[in-house]
Amino acid sequence: MADPGSGGALSPLELYNRVSEQGDKVRVLKMEKAPKDEIDAAVKLLLALKVDYKNATGEDYKPGSPPNNDTPNSNNGLPAAGDGDDFVDPWTVQTGSAKGVNYDKLIVRFGSSKIDKDLIDRIERVTGNKAHHFLRRGIFFSHRDMHQILDAVENKKPFYLYTGRGPSSEAMHVGHLIPFIFTKWLQEVFNVPLVVQMTDDEKYLWKDLTIEKAYQYTIENAKDIIACGFDVNKTFIFSDLEYMGTSSGFYKNVVRVQKHVTFNQVKGIFGFTDSDCIGKISFPAIQAAPSFSSSFPEIFNGRKDIQCLIPCAIDQDPYFRMTRDVAPRISYLKPALLHSTFFPALQGAQTKMSASDPNSSIFLTDTAKQIKNKINKHAFSGGKDTIEEHRKYGGNCEVDVCYMYLTFFLEDDEKLEKIKQDYTSGALLTGELKKILIETLQPMISAHQERRKHITEEVVKQFMTPRKLAFDF
Amino acid sequence: MADPGSGGALSPLELYNRVSEQGDKVRVLKMEKAPKDEIDAAVKLLLALKVDYKNATGEDYKPGSPPNNDTPNSNNGLPAAGDGDDFVDPWTVQTGSAKGVNYDKLIVRFGSSKIDKDLIDRIERVTGNKAHHFLRRGIFFSHRDMHQILDAVENKKPFYLYTGRGPSSEAMHVGHLIPFIFTKWLQEVFNVPLVVQMTDDEKYLWKDLTIEKAYQYTIENAKDIIACGFDVNKTFIFSDLEYMGTSSGFYKNVVRVQKHVTFNQVKGIFGFTDSDCIGKISFPAIQAAPSFSSSFPEIFNGRKDIQCLIPCAIDQDPYFRMTRDVAPRISYLKPALLHSTFFPALQGAQTKMSASDPNSSIFLTDTAKQIKNKINKHAFSGGKDTIEEHRKYGGNCEVDVCYMYLTFFLEDDEKLEKIKQDYTSGALLTGELKKILIETLQPMISAHQERRKHITEEVVKQFMTPRKLAFDF
Repeated sequence: MADPGSGGALSPLELYNRVSEQGDKVRVLKMEKAPKDEIDAAVKLLLALKVDYKNATGEDYKPGSPPNNDTPNSNNGLPAAGDGDDFVDPWTVQTGSAKGVNYDKLIVRFGSSKIDKDLIDRIERVTGNKAHHFLRRGIFFSHRDMHQILDAVENKKPFYLYTGRGPSSEAMHVGHLIPFIFTKWLQEVFNVPLVVQMTDDEKYLWKDLTIEKAYQYTIENAKDIIACGFDVNKTFIFSDLEYMGTSSGFYKNVVRVQKHVTFNQVKGIFGFTDSDCIGKISFPAIQAAPSFSSSFPEIFNGRKDIQCLIPCAIDQDPYFRMTRDVAPRISYLKPALLHSTFFPALQGAQTKMSASDPNSSIFLTDTAKQIKNKINKHAFSGGKDTIEEHRKYGGNCEVDVCYMYLTFFLEDDEKLEKIKQDYTSGALLTGELKKILIETLQPMISAHQERRKHITEEVVKQFMTPRKLAFDF
Repeated sequence: MADPGSGGALSPLELYNRVSEQGDKVRVLKMEKAPKDEIDAAVKLLLALKVDYKNATGEDYKPGSPPNNDTPNSNNGLPAAGDGDDFVDPWTVQTGSAKGVNYDKLIVRFGSSKIDKDLIDRIERVTGNKAHHFLRRGIFFSHRDMHQILDAVENKKPFYLYTGRGPSSEAMHVGHLIPFIFTKWLQEVFNVPLVVQMTDDEKYLWKDLTIEKAYQYTIENAKDIIACGFDVNKTFIFSDLEYMGTSSGFYKNVVRVQKHVTFNQVKGIFGFTDSDCIGKISFPAIQAAPSFSSSFPEIFNGRKDIQCLIPCAIDQDPYFRMTRDVAPRISYLKPALLHSTFFPALQGAQTKMSASDPNSSIFLTDTAKQIKNKINKHAFSGGKDTIEEHRKYGGNCEVDVCYMYLTFFLEDDEKLEKIKQDYTSGALLTGELKKILIETLQPMISAHQERRKHITEEVVKQFMTPRKLAFDF
């Protein structure tokens, strides 16, 4: 991690102020849609400053909490004790390691629980199904209160699923499918209803988009979500912009949450500043509200006591930490959570993919040829520089993006294990590994495109109509 | 105005911090519903500190804007140049003068325009009606862009009226009727549609109320509003809590406003702090949204270009200054405004009335006997201590609450003028003046109660159903 070269000379408070200013700068650059390299450079400096801050104070930088003590920590100069160079919030995921974010450290920092073998075994027992490979392979790796959900199922009590998507463009990439693929599996094995929130209001607030455009993205993205195979009788997809004006329960819960969260709290959790618009500041309540069954009176017959389970990427956890904090104070149940790792960009696991960079991932609209070219050209390889070296020393699956993608999309455990062994030993060459991934993704994407083609406006409307869903309560 | 006795010794920044702290203290006391005298004392100290601050810096205290220069003003110690002891925002109206707030100074401070004889003459010409006595007597005394509304009328362009009420209890007092009495007159003489916002969400956020209770107050207050005689074919009354979940246009405009107002701005305008809940912080956008015709697609056939005129008490102006600032940035028309003075409490014009203090005003539920007793017992008198002195020196109409009330409710100009002359000369005694007010209010209130009795839930529902209103566009 780069050192800005000035940390040692600054007091903790000066460092705190520099981190804070640099954070603002990053936000402004993002808001202004500055060139990617400019943003990356600013983020790098931000992370470096945070490391300096931690070295100087022994504590993680927390927005809104200046250092208690303005004398440098006695460990000053020593390297940060751990995950100081990972940064995760709903808008930024950044790590200095080609292996990606250190998720074990993230669990400790976020205070969630690891999905361990016991939990996976119990899920298999309760559902009578083999665990999804996302569970077996640690792609969904962290949880909150999942045992409580399983207790409920064993006691024949109902629960429902809630996940979502911020529709920032028409084009979704394969990484965006991860929560939906897993949620579909959960819906099937538990036979429960699902609500999918499309936060078009959030995208309007954060991006240079009109309300109309954000809603249009909702409709287009909904088609890709529906194409994952959700059961229309058990699934409700909603646009915030639309549902807020149709539901007798949603706004009331938004206001309930808004009454119980202060600006100080969202400042600490999300890093908002005084220059942020009041829409952003109050938005977290809108992402919180679907965690409560009374937000959907049409679906749950007005019942307030149905527990919610949220499968999502770990970067969304801050919203739900806040939600879980508020829930008991408004007499609601805390939602349970299942957290996934991030899907790596083709260029490597250091960053989350970006829908605005067409080469950073495989898009659901890519042709077979585009898939082939992108993987051959852009997929970061863990192989050696020459065939001879590769045969001799073998490749590194831990940083190889093609191998990582296969852990997501190749369901056959034995085949995957063999690929790992062969690549590590050098028996499998990088070109051959890329070919396996290409041949895995091409039919998968083209099947998705075929299913999506048949999703008419009428079908979208069905999914998006508030109505009673089919399930046993 | 009391002097806290320490102003001279403190620097501007120290004074700024003391005002800020005392402001927080007042807010906390109000939130905790502390005893009235405790709140009053805290408010008095706040006002005194503000005067000290102005003396020290030459500028009004502005939340969020510490003094630029921390050396005391050269005028230090001189009395404040004018309205330093009036304090007006949507939650607090306080003045040191028994004559009430200095409204001429308020016009200068708020940057609005005085309603002068020219404007009143023009309203009479355009409507073909004699001006309402609230206009003739300066009860509606200030405006923004009223000439623009009259231009529109002359050019056969449509406009609509918007006013509102925060339903904080079932009991409304006569002061609450002022905007509605005047709005009804405007509706009649201009023949235009009217929307009435019941900010039950605001009351839930600010007070110790449930959502259900706030909505119940909306319904009860709506009955009193309807009893003012509004035409059901031209009037839409709505609860925020309900309408937000029924309208396809309202939330979209709320989000539009929320995107264009920062926390810094609402901090400056409303004095919010980091400890305020995010609901309060984003609420101003909800009071802004009805200023735009596209918030009511059902009423205005989706038209976005219909100008709005807002009659309201001047303490609501901060919301609409903000709204007028945002409007052009979201391609909407700025609303025009007509501002009224405050209705004085029975105890004197120093404070706004309080729905929570039954003796501070005449309530719409009071019996004839209660009206008589309250006026005889609590109405602050401008008369002299003994009959002899009163006959000799005369009474002071400028501070006499009975006389003030008559300016609101006695429509006969000649009779009012005669009362003024007789009381000032001493010919009319305080007991006699009180009797005139009692005999004016008793039939007015009982007629209101009679009309209210006939307002069924069905009628309320009619007024509160989103629908096309009858008017010519």
